[in-house]
Amino acid sequence: MTNFESIFNTSQQAYLQYKHLDFQKRAEFLESIAKGLEVRRVEIVPIACQESNLPEGRITGELGRTVGQIRLFANLLKEGAWVEAVIDHGDPDRTPVPKPDIRRMLTALGPVVVFGASNFPLAFSTAGGDTISALAAGCSVVYKGHPAHPQTSLLVAEIIQEAIRVSVMPTGVFIHVEGGIAEGQALVVHPLTKAVAFTGSFSGGKAIYDAAQQREEPIPVFAEMGSVNPIFVFEQKLQQELSVLAKQFASSLTLGAGQFCTNPGLIFVPSIHAASFGGAIQQELEKVAPASMLHEGIASAYYHSLGQLSKQEVLQWLQVATQQDMIKAYPSFAQVHVKDWLKNSLFQQEVFGCFAMMVVYESMDDINEVAKHLHGQLTISIWAGEEELNLHPSIVQLLTEKCGRLLFKGVPTGVEVGYAMQHGGPFPATTDSRSTSVGAFAIKRFARPLAYQDMPVQLLPLALRDENPLGIWRMVDGVFGK
Amino acid sequence: MTNFESIFNTSQQAYLQYKHLDFQKRAEFLESIAKGLEVRRVEIVPIACQESNLPEGRITGELGRTVGQIRLFANLLKEGAWVEAVIDHGDPDRTPVPKPDIRRMLTALGPVVVFGASNFPLAFSTAGGDTISALAAGCSVVYKGHPAHPQTSLLVAEIIQEAIRVSVMPTGVFIHVEGGIAEGQALVVHPLTKAVAFTGSFSGGKAIYDAAQQREEPIPVFAEMGSVNPIFVFEQKLQQELSVLAKQFASSLTLGAGQFCTNPGLIFVPSIHAASFGGAIQQELEKVAPASMLHEGIASAYYHSLGQLSKQEVLQWLQVATQQDMIKAYPSFAQVHVKDWLKNSLFQQEVFGCFAMMVVYESMDDINEVAKHLHGQLTISIWAGEEELNLHPSIVQLLTEKCGRLLFKGVPTGVEVGYAMQHGGPFPATTDSRSTSVGAFAIKRFARPLAYQDMPVQLLPLALRDENPLGIWRMVDGVFGK
Repeated sequence: MTNFESIFNTSQQAYLQYKHLDFQKRAEFLESIAKGLEVRRVEIVPIACQESNLPEGRITGELGRTVGQIRLFANLLKEGAWVEAVIDHGDPDRTPVPKPDIRRMLTALGPVVVFGASNFPLAFSTAGGDTISALAAGCSVVYKGHPAHPQTSLLVAEIIQEAIRVSVMPTGVFIHVEGGIAEGQALVVHPLTKAVAFTGSFSGGKAIYDAAQQREEPIPVFAEMGSVNPIFVFEQKLQQELSVLAKQFASSLTLGAGQFCTNPGLIFVPSIHAASFGGAIQQELEKVAPASMLHEGIASAYYHSLGQLSKQEVLQWLQVATQQDMIKAYPSFAQVHVKDWLKNSLFQQEVFGCFAMMVVYESMDDINEVAKHLHGQLTISIWAGEEELNLHPSIVQLLTEKCGRLLFKGVPTGVEVGYAMQHGGPFPATTDSRSTSVGAFAIKRFARPLAYQDMPVQLLPLALRDENPLGIWRMVDGVFGK
Repeated sequence: MTNFESIFNTSQQAYLQYKHLDFQKRAEFLESIAKGLEVRRVEIVPIACQESNLPEGRITGELGRTVGQIRLFANLLKEGAWVEAVIDHGDPDRTPVPKPDIRRMLTALGPVVVFGASNFPLAFSTAGGDTISALAAGCSVVYKGHPAHPQTSLLVAEIIQEAIRVSVMPTGVFIHVEGGIAEGQALVVHPLTKAVAFTGSFSGGKAIYDAAQQREEPIPVFAEMGSVNPIFVFEQKLQQELSVLAKQFASSLTLGAGQFCTNPGLIFVPSIHAASFGGAIQQELEKVAPASMLHEGIASAYYHSLGQLSKQEVLQWLQVATQQDMIKAYPSFAQVHVKDWLKNSLFQQEVFGCFAMMVVYESMDDINEVAKHLHGQLTISIWAGEEELNLHPSIVQLLTEKCGRLLFKGVPTGVEVGYAMQHGGPFPATTDSRSTSVGAFAIKRFARPLAYQDMPVQLLPLALRDENPLGIWRMVDGVFGK
């Protein structure tokens, strides 16, 4: 096994220097990585396509997204408000005791272990959101590349190393390692690790979470383990837009061979329109050309899951993936009555790929019951007419308990990278519903508050000086200002 | 054992109603609790004094602090910015895909289990910071009273129940339960529990943390387990202010019989002044009249710990608690050389009570070595002259790695309740260094982000409507404003 002692010592030393660099320098380092990705786009795209089986358009788009999110974090650093600077001035004359001067801001946690994801060889991998948000927060990163795209990972790691050289960052602020399950666990349990970020399957994420429980020192584990992203379709909406909704659904389900965390694997449909809507979806699915999955292991897991489900007699198959393939995913689609769905929690498990279950319900009471029993999700979508939606505010409220993002239009795939995005949800979607792995607030995962009491002015971090040299939004004596 | 099924069902039902009440109503409920505590002050104070052995002045002060922090959270609700509202407007014309409208704010986690603390029968107990910050966030609370002050706890619970009636809150938003270790564990592992807050010993907090690991669904456990709150005294400072510092230290060490999380149990002193400073502290300690501890179990644990330490030959005792008592704590004080201190991690363990260890160092290299090996702390204090402090910026930086609050003046006891306070630190001080249990930001422990995508305006929470009816600080399209 790799010599993790020396790796973590290097990472820790780099962290101790790196975290004290000013935000501007950190931002320039991130921009240098973004630029490197753009400059070497022509090298990256073909390798990533070849290793992931994803089409060129998708990889090009993902590279653009990766570069975009790096710049988002660079801008966040330049803007500066993310450190949540708070100043409570002292009052030496207060009775019975003088009031101390206390100033608080976020500070980096330490070395962070990041695991690459197979389904996003760029955006959730080597220079992906987890790595970049940890670096933005001032942490060093020990990154374990995903074995499904080793060459892509090494190439991007090389680009980061080049950015480290160009920006004169401490060597070791980013370290790329390779390995399997044993290496991954060794990284998680290392005493110098202060947080872990992971995107992948439930079993993978839970194994990492459980490994972290063996540690003497508890650390946060941000495992995003996907979900089935249910869509609830209400009657009037369906009556009005049946064929458009069928197209939207089929397209979201089969996008990227269904290999997205936000892939909609569950759709609740009123019984009165179930036959026509189910038929319309099936017709759309028939038009979809089967796409290659990320690798043979994932294709085989997809067909294995379908095999398990085929033993469930309550399922009625509307589209069967008869032509099983070593690598290509044929869409599949089954129907079940809500009473049967409620009886079997297997029907809530994610099938990674382009499979969905249509659950037929009779009344809003059924939806109410479903909302109570539903597992935690990244997203829930409600497709409803405005009038019928207004009649059921309590269902909307109940569903907010079960997700991190609630949609009222469109499909859950296509996660917008911005300030308001929440990509995280109640367990088992993630191990920490208080965090997001997409969007600007992903940086908060890797920082903790630190208060300075009566600190001499010359030692105060710039973010906490009275004259506000960084010009950032802060709370001073209970009042927001700049 | 208590019927926790029915308790949690009640708590969950109450939560589902309570979280959707507007902030103003929630604030009035909290204010009603604060008022109840003030009105029934004459009943509370004598019972709390009797059950805790704490003097009337201290309990009166603690009641004032409890009322003050309830009003802080009420004000936080009225001000509203704590929900971190973020709006990213959509753009239907964006290419290649339209940009959705996404709005994000914090939402309550669910029923929270709070454990009372023996050393703060009011401020960290029934209507203490954990309960009130969870209620402020919109959670319901299942509260386990501390067996050391049962009558105080029941009286305060009655006041909360009265506030629930007066403010017409859902019954069950606060439920008081009693019990021991088994009941505590049953509360932690219950599937409806969504977070746990605890203040107390390392063994108690770690047991609760470990119990939570048995759960199928991971939940955040905020255990504040205390620390030894080291003070580093530099040479010039000591030379100039030896007798004042000795007084300050002895007074902080013996305040409340040393029963504070922030009690300074460790002081690092340069060898050149060790004899005179040690002597001065010893003289101050001799003047302190021994105070009653909270209960006999705590007094006996104090003397047991001293007995264990007395077997350590490298310790030189400057003040010995010869007159052991069933309830009163006699101050004790020992000296050890830094080389010996570094060899034995027992010397980093908290002795709950008025015992401190003076560690004698020879050079700043020793301090550097100590900083590397020091366990996580709630607070670290640096008592240094301005010039000598400027000579050692790297030591200041190293020490920030090991605490939640860094002081440059005064003593760690007397935790200010405000916006900038951070009461929490790296393990083993707490199980989650990203949280604080004192100050306004304590509310953030009990909430998670929720994003609404393309939500119809009439359903949007007030905090997220374009016209900003609550008049709160928000981030709109990346820009802060009101």
